[in-house]
Amino acid sequence: MNPALSGIAPSLIRAINARKRPGDIDLGLGEPTLRPDGAPFEAAAARVRDEGLPYTANAGPPELRSAIAGYFAFPGMSEAANVCVTIGSEEALYLAIKTVLDPARDEVLIPEPCYLAYPKLCALERVRHRAVGFDAADGFRPRAAAVLDALRPETRMIVINTPANPTGRVWPAAELRALADGLAARPGPPVYVLSDEVYRELYYTPERPASVAEMHPHALVAGSLSKSNALTGLRLGWLIGPREVITEATKVHQLVNTAASTFSSHVAHQIFTRPETLAAHRPLYARQRALLLELLARHGIEHAPVEGAFYCFVRLPQPLSADSLAAAERLLDEHRVVTVPGIAFGAAGEGWLRLSWVAPSDALADGIARVAAFFGR
Amino acid sequence: MNPALSGIAPSLIRAINARKRPGDIDLGLGEPTLRPDGAPFEAAAARVRDEGLPYTANAGPPELRSAIAGYFAFPGMSEAANVCVTIGSEEALYLAIKTVLDPARDEVLIPEPCYLAYPKLCALERVRHRAVGFDAADGFRPRAAAVLDALRPETRMIVINTPANPTGRVWPAAELRALADGLAARPGPPVYVLSDEVYRELYYTPERPASVAEMHPHALVAGSLSKSNALTGLRLGWLIGPREVITEATKVHQLVNTAASTFSSHVAHQIFTRPETLAAHRPLYARQRALLLELLARHGIEHAPVEGAFYCFVRLPQPLSADSLAAAERLLDEHRVVTVPGIAFGAAGEGWLRLSWVAPSDALADGIARVAAFFGR
Repeated sequence: MNPALSGIAPSLIRAINARKRPGDIDLGLGEPTLRPDGAPFEAAAARVRDEGLPYTANAGPPELRSAIAGYFAFPGMSEAANVCVTIGSEEALYLAIKTVLDPARDEVLIPEPCYLAYPKLCALERVRHRAVGFDAADGFRPRAAAVLDALRPETRMIVINTPANPTGRVWPAAELRALADGLAARPGPPVYVLSDEVYRELYYTPERPASVAEMHPHALVAGSLSKSNALTGLRLGWLIGPREVITEATKVHQLVNTAASTFSSHVAHQIFTRPETLAAHRPLYARQRALLLELLARHGIEHAPVEGAFYCFVRLPQPLSADSLAAAERLLDEHRVVTVPGIAFGAAGEGWLRLSWVAPSDALADGIARVAAFFGR
Repeated sequence: MNPALSGIAPSLIRAINARKRPGDIDLGLGEPTLRPDGAPFEAAAARVRDEGLPYTANAGPPELRSAIAGYFAFPGMSEAANVCVTIGSEEALYLAIKTVLDPARDEVLIPEPCYLAYPKLCALERVRHRAVGFDAADGFRPRAAAVLDALRPETRMIVINTPANPTGRVWPAAELRALADGLAARPGPPVYVLSDEVYRELYYTPERPASVAEMHPHALVAGSLSKSNALTGLRLGWLIGPREVITEATKVHQLVNTAASTFSSHVAHQIFTRPETLAAHRPLYARQRALLLELLARHGIEHAPVEGAFYCFVRLPQPLSADSLAAAERLLDEHRVVTVPGIAFGAAGEGWLRLSWVAPSDALADGIARVAAFFGR
């Protein structure tokens, strides 16, 4: 067996879910509960009748690649050649890590708390990785200085996530600019910034979150339709980046799975021809977030600012904060609410819990009340 | 950049296709030209209206895993836990190579001529690989003795393909039995046989081709709906194997792409509930094969026996046989027929050309006549 696999810890999210019983309130979910629009599926099914379902080009249908590149319009990355269509944003992350890093010498720097796949993908590819923790004291606000201070000569990639899972924070444009400026000032080969923007359409800040790809020529952006359009099962995402990286990433993509589903590509093309549908669910999330914030305030639950995504990172009171896994287990066993312990997202997340707030309103209210009771509020 | 990528040669098939002009006869295709059944797509689209499109479990929907395991019913591998649903058979090959091999010490043995992804996937994963050539003198008939004689102590996997691309040969059951017996008699850790059975439903032998998984406990079987059901664009396949391998392979699968498309899984489940549809296209291929054999005989073109798949491996006459790439290029440039040079499938394929015979009958007849003219027949 490949020894790299034994180094990959089983998911704490799965360990928690394995304890779940029928009737428990699930604030652990990582996917929307909204229904997607069915129309693009019927259009795509009709197309199968007309055309069959052949392979697309490895990097995806040219018209879809163009539509994605044009929608984001990142400077120097706005052509079809800057896009590889992937199996969700997950494969985009994999391709980026697999393609640009030399396991013999390169290192990846990962701000925490973070989506747990980033360090695991590095472990799978035997690429060294190192964490830098954002500060719990200011609700894990992303700060360029923390990242720049942690760089080493061998650091060749930084993985950022905005809006972020699990914290719900958004990288301020000024912090991204400071990050890009700091990297531009460094001697030596480029440091890539892999920006996971899978929650890009779900933001509650006054302005749409900025992307590092607007500021840094060595940016790689991962995205998908999973969260914006409630299409996690579509498995349709993209990696956007410099042309020479996309060319090499497409070699990997071709070898590991040939191409994304032609049917899913048809559905995606339908959506990108009406790009306003990418933002269609945002008002619904904004309303649910308002309810969430009211509930948290009512119960006096301390949390990081909810600027994006559909998570809320809440601070465990003492003495629960010493062991977030034990707290999540007790919350489930004694109060029947599924959450995710902060430690699942790296050491910086210890003492916190991730709640997702995509459950129906009454279940959310009930769940938050139970969390408050557990906290002794 | 990852230095493993620079070691992966660009595809000769793409190099040939890049020279193709409108109006050329394409005998280079690697996918069916038949139309798939549209009904499963409409049923799946209706299901999206009812249920949305959430993630499936990482290894696929349990009912689909059960249906696949039950359909193949390999001994000791007939439960859902023996199946991971993948992004086509391509990902199944990747998962097998990535999961069971230790790049630091293991070696893969690959009989040639072979589908070009096998050595490339090994190169991508930095796993040593070595070729053993089947004998052109008997049309590349698969022989266990050739494989067993080539084993070394560090060989931990053999990749076989039946029916085979590019040769169209089928491993006789007696040869698979001899291979399994030879491996069982070896001391030391097991040697896995990764059996690519993506053309399993397309056979023209009296009996359905046997699978090594019927005989060898350390078999891993890759398959998909791409060829049997003309659904290359569905990107829905499977890896079948021992439970402990599937558990580890699912860890890789989860990290590299989370799961296959839920929509594609719905379509696949429709098909496996009526498994006779897996064989529905076989009579059409058998008729086209009869035409092909008549054309080849009429023109006196020498070829390997066409026992399965939709390829025919033809022997180049001298002096063309010295350079199959040059021959394929001249055939395209001078006679306007796309084929694939045998050298694309490894050194053992030099001196041969792969023709696919999925083109419409009149194009096939015209194409074979042009090949004959080029050969001076």
